[in-house]
Amino acid sequence: MENSKTQTQLATVFTAEELLKHWQSHRALTRRTIVAFPEKEFFSHSIGGMRTYAKMVQEMLAIAAPGLKEIVDGKTAEFEENDFQNKKENYLKAWDETTEIIDEYFPKIKLEDFHKPVKTFGQYEGTVISSIFYFIDNEIHHRGQGYVYLRSLDIEPPFFWEH
Amino acid sequence: MENSKTQTQLATVFTAEELLKHWQSHRALTRRTIVAFPEKEFFSHSIGGMRTYAKMVQEMLAIAAPGLKEIVDGKTAEFEENDFQNKKENYLKAWDETTEIIDEYFPKIKLEDFHKPVKTFGQYEGTVISSIFYFIDNEIHHRGQGYVYLRSLDIEPPFFWEH
Repeated sequence: MENSKTQTQLATVFTAEELLKHWQSHRALTRRTIVAFPEKEFFSHSIGGMRTYAKMVQEMLAIAAPGLKEIVDGKTAEFEENDFQNKKENYLKAWDETTEIIDEYFPKIKLEDFHKPVKTFGQYEGTVISSIFYFIDNEIHHRGQGYVYLRSLDIEPPFFWEH
Repeated sequence: MENSKTQTQLATVFTAEELLKHWQSHRALTRRTIVAFPEKEFFSHSIGGMRTYAKMVQEMLAIAAPGLKEIVDGKTAEFEENDFQNKKENYLKAWDETTEIIDEYFPKIKLEDFHKPVKTFGQYEGTVISSIFYFIDNEIHHRGQGYVYLRSLDIEPPFFWEH
């Protein structure tokens, strides 16, 4: 039994635990990127008519916990961006609450359900695994944009390799 | 037998085939981002003292095929950025050659080897799977930065969701 379990784990591209760790370590890097922004520029700085970093983070927060809860509970979630009253500390608080929600809900996904079809927020068709990768990749994408904002403000972003 | 194979596939977070598809579809989106750049700005445009998009793409090309070949062959690769003579068409040609190399080499990774430790380019310690995710995530990160460059040039980047 013990042996068979080890073999199964070895013959897997990526375990569920690793995916959770992958997601949370990316989120920890995004948190450091939020911290690196000055309070004012977090809400005001923008390039080429793009959203502020605060707006991008608001989107990430609207996706992560509600999207995962939807996957676990099977109830269609509304895509709803919360109002954090233009205070960075409120974003960080919501970020940390999301970290806890992910740690609580992610392990509820059954291994045999990762390939189950889902339609997140009533419109994005995929599977459980493709949706979770979309959540993560969308965050990496916008965090990379936050790095340009920081550089253009002459601020050194967190080291990418560390996450 | 048939039944057991199906069960194994269903009880996997992500199959090797899906990881390959995930990687190549991200690479297809990055290719469209390269195409979206005007020839001149691909090599000259920059924000906040960052590298040009050409330099970022040069790094992606130095990582993807050499890194994967190193994983498969077990021989330490040199990290070496090729000279593409400041022509976007040379980058696109190298991009397409890399696509073929990945399609050829990726299936040579044995399922039981995804968790094997590797030190890519003689310095980055990880496992086969963590290294491949680093290759992909690094590309998403820099492509997001390319989007800001495009927006600041008043050019619409490719739609992110499509990849």
